[in-house]
Amino acid sequence: MTGRDRFTYADAGVDLDAAEELTRRLASLAASTRTGRVSGHFGSFGGRFRLSGDSELVASADGVGTKVLVARMAGRHDGVGQDLVNHCVDDILTEGAEPLFFLDYFACGTLDSDVAFAVIDGVARACRDNGCALLGGETAEMPGLYAPGDYDLAGFIVGRVAFDLRGRDAVSIGDRLVALPSTGLHTNGYSLARGILFDRLGLDVADEYPGTGSTVGEVLLRVHRSYLPHLREACAAGWVSALAHITGGGIPGNLSRVLPAETQAVVDLRTWDPGPVFSFLAGQSGMTTDEVFRALNMGIGMIAVIPTDHVDEALDSVRRTGIEPFVCGEILAGDGDVRLEAG
Amino acid sequence: MTGRDRFTYADAGVDLDAAEELTRRLASLAASTRTGRVSGHFGSFGGRFRLSGDSELVASADGVGTKVLVARMAGRHDGVGQDLVNHCVDDILTEGAEPLFFLDYFACGTLDSDVAFAVIDGVARACRDNGCALLGGETAEMPGLYAPGDYDLAGFIVGRVAFDLRGRDAVSIGDRLVALPSTGLHTNGYSLARGILFDRLGLDVADEYPGTGSTVGEVLLRVHRSYLPHLREACAAGWVSALAHITGGGIPGNLSRVLPAETQAVVDLRTWDPGPVFSFLAGQSGMTTDEVFRALNMGIGMIAVIPTDHVDEALDSVRRTGIEPFVCGEILAGDGDVRLEAG
Repeated sequence: MTGRDRFTYADAGVDLDAAEELTRRLASLAASTRTGRVSGHFGSFGGRFRLSGDSELVASADGVGTKVLVARMAGRHDGVGQDLVNHCVDDILTEGAEPLFFLDYFACGTLDSDVAFAVIDGVARACRDNGCALLGGETAEMPGLYAPGDYDLAGFIVGRVAFDLRGRDAVSIGDRLVALPSTGLHTNGYSLARGILFDRLGLDVADEYPGTGSTVGEVLLRVHRSYLPHLREACAAGWVSALAHITGGGIPGNLSRVLPAETQAVVDLRTWDPGPVFSFLAGQSGMTTDEVFRALNMGIGMIAVIPTDHVDEALDSVRRTGIEPFVCGEILAGDGDVRLEAG
Repeated sequence: MTGRDRFTYADAGVDLDAAEELTRRLASLAASTRTGRVSGHFGSFGGRFRLSGDSELVASADGVGTKVLVARMAGRHDGVGQDLVNHCVDDILTEGAEPLFFLDYFACGTLDSDVAFAVIDGVARACRDNGCALLGGETAEMPGLYAPGDYDLAGFIVGRVAFDLRGRDAVSIGDRLVALPSTGLHTNGYSLARGILFDRLGLDVADEYPGTGSTVGEVLLRVHRSYLPHLREACAAGWVSALAHITGGGIPGNLSRVLPAETQAVVDLRTWDPGPVFSFLAGQSGMTTDEVFRALNMGIGMIAVIPTDHVDEALDSVRRTGIEPFVCGEILAGDGDVRLEAG
């Protein structure tokens, strides 16, 4: 594989190393503002804040990445609003929180009321679906920063701890990794996918996404799944030790966030077929398996770490909500790493 | 005044009418997500949410507008981080809330760790100054949406109601308008100011801002003031009926948000001199007085509505914090309007 054939995140203009270095530097800034009520640790999926008595809040901020550019190409804008809310709901679910309220930030070069309304209509729809109030938001028109027609979208969620997920501390050797399928790329890997599909292959959103029978626009704009309805029963029953939301960094980057130091997570790649959407991008990119699993979710949007004696009932509870979970690996003794086993 | 000489917000590419129309449409979307715990009304400076018992939260989302483009021109990035936090602190202060925690969203075309660190260092500094935890944030690298070197910045704050500002319902005929000085443009009017200073007059950030003895960069990057330390005593003492944070829409657009329908606010323009920063922009723009007061804060960053019998002690309490407040007008019988009186 030569440099010319490969198409990596760096080729797409995204520097993951710089981002990791920055995250380390920002941890000290956040620590400098820590008040007695901050109860979580920096680097988790959502920040925890103890309010009073037994009330503990969890908050998270997120964007939907360059999926907004695909929405613009396709002229379909309601999906990214849902993506944004569902992404945030999934982030705080990993801290055991159910959503209370949400605020959005919509910034654009020139305000097209219909586009902005469509985006925020999607935000409101996903808020209703997740039982979350849209408490406010900001719409900013910023000529000179955004090109005419371009926009960016960020969201902020606050939830309250409702489930006792003990997280990393509860994860033990022998626990199983229960995978919940994603609908597609969700909100990660879009700079890479755009680079391959549009820039390198010259495809348009209306062209067929090879091997899928759907258009590129349809595939890329599938809405990020909220796992709250699918995991509520298992979380409430206390069957789930920890959750990893598979976002930027993929399965290795996110599963490692819930691993105790003396364990490893072994993911058996023979337990599922990522399907044509991911296989095509992986093949075209020329990236190694490790690289592609860090750039894309590869068909899994959430992994629940579950003790063996609760796996069957957890699988059943998820199945009853209409999606098909499966065991994709287990926790073994190790040194905090995630190992992808191809067999 | 001909069209050619005038330089308005529309010339700068910002459509305030479209924004107002959109806000009306969004109100129904927000209403569709309303849960039993939402306790405020859409269109206030911060959304209110009743948590449990007597705990009421207030949340707000905001950006700093195209001030980020000035920061980039000047190569000074820590101020916009402080702007963002202070703007949010002031927004929720109008609902009687003290800040609990903050989250930021930093999005860029190419991640420059030093720039991102400087921005978020400013965020953290202002969080410490306001007794607020920086609970998390999102850093997004989005090539194709932002030009290399460009970035946008949004923030999200959650506070708890600590002061009994009864707001609009408490505002009465005869109340005085107590003005607190701004440091400069704060975070509004930057597309207009950039259009006039850079595009029309061809000035650079290192040139003198006419009549000030300071550079354009220094003047435009003065940090948005947090009014929390200046108003804490007056708010805690119950002297303040309502607060209007003078942001987009200026004095008329924001003061009107706290007026009961049967009143008007009369602002006496002879009570203060906006100073050379605002006078120069106003003169160059060729806008009418009404237009310029909607585009810029004109030297006043916050207006407190205070019953006459508490005005003197409120003025004293603000003075003791090192800034010079003054009475700029009063509440009269009327029809909900803000009237600017030039004498």
